[in-house]
Amino acid sequence: MSPLSITAADIEEMEHLYRINLINSITGYKSANLIGTKSKNGVSNVAVFSSVTHFGSNPALIGVVMRPTTVARNTYDNIINTKYYTINHIHQAIIEDAHHTSAKYPENISEFDKTDLEEEYINNFEAPFVKQSVIKMAMELVETIPVKANGTILVLGRVLELILPPEIIADDGFVDLNTAQTVAISGLDAYHRPQQQARLSYARPDQKVTKI
Amino acid sequence: MSPLSITAADIEEMEHLYRINLINSITGYKSANLIGTKSKNGVSNVAVFSSVTHFGSNPALIGVVMRPTTVARNTYDNIINTKYYTINHIHQAIIEDAHHTSAKYPENISEFDKTDLEEEYINNFEAPFVKQSVIKMAMELVETIPVKANGTILVLGRVLELILPPEIIADDGFVDLNTAQTVAISGLDAYHRPQQQARLSYARPDQKVTKI
Repeated sequence: MSPLSITAADIEEMEHLYRINLINSITGYKSANLIGTKSKNGVSNVAVFSSVTHFGSNPALIGVVMRPTTVARNTYDNIINTKYYTINHIHQAIIEDAHHTSAKYPENISEFDKTDLEEEYINNFEAPFVKQSVIKMAMELVETIPVKANGTILVLGRVLELILPPEIIADDGFVDLNTAQTVAISGLDAYHRPQQQARLSYARPDQKVTKI
Repeated sequence: MSPLSITAADIEEMEHLYRINLINSITGYKSANLIGTKSKNGVSNVAVFSSVTHFGSNPALIGVVMRPTTVARNTYDNIINTKYYTINHIHQAIIEDAHHTSAKYPENISEFDKTDLEEEYINNFEAPFVKQSVIKMAMELVETIPVKANGTILVLGRVLELILPPEIIADDGFVDLNTAQTVAISGLDAYHRPQQQARLSYARPDQKVTKI
């Protein structure tokens, strides 16, 4: 079939669920992470996010897109109030429980009590890690950046500590996410296992890139 | 082996290449897209980006992280000067050429002339699409948001037109990226083919999520 053209006006007129399924798919594969936080009242919280994005390596800066008016509100409020949170990779074995954290529980309920995800406290860091996760990060809030166009907020944090198995780190620092069984998300609800096709050499003008 | 703890101080002291390989890996899988632009002088440009991120569905808003002091400068300048750009999915068959666009060519050289990627003009949109891409978007600049912490800039745009094969769109709007052969990136240089494990049902409190 020949390609379909969908305009901004078409998108605006779509039924809500159709639109969010479509537009959440079109950026490509997304990272799959659980963000762990604790409220001022000591209630722990864990929630799935597909918008965790690299912003810089030195310092190590990571952004997450949040919409404070949705279910992510507990996570957002906790980060603003405490300044600390964790980012934990989702892997194959915890997909269902990770996805379940998107259910709208009231703020006095911990998703750790509603799933088999276990909270873990490491080196006195106040926010809960997800015990099952293979790759975990302790994060400190750096900056919240409001997006005028639609009221979302970019929450930017700095990596305080990175915890992962040494055997998945290559000699050059590259982390083997296939072996960690980290998954990717597409759309709102699809979980994928990626398989590495190639690492490619640093690209230089007029030189063919090669597999490394 | 027991998990390794890497602190912010450790990250700061790392050798540059080791650090960027490591920190670019830890957010998980990333989207793999080519951004097409045209300069004021009519030189076309195409460059690989792994930071294309969903910001909202209504309007359809997409963000890209750019560092104007790097090779991405041509893309950034062209977007600022013309307001228009395209986002094109990278699929299995064009991985090498897509990666090659990260080579530092001067601004008067088009990466379309240095690779087998072909520029395509659709419906009089002024920025070039990548002909080979299965999923393509015409974008209009909405907002540039400076990140104080490290001088990167979040470039936020609105989808004007989305072009894709109708047969990969499910009845509920979900797009089958596996069939589109869209790839994911990890680290700086690894390209992956994801395989869908499951779509999971909308999560509701105290109900088990199920495969849909």
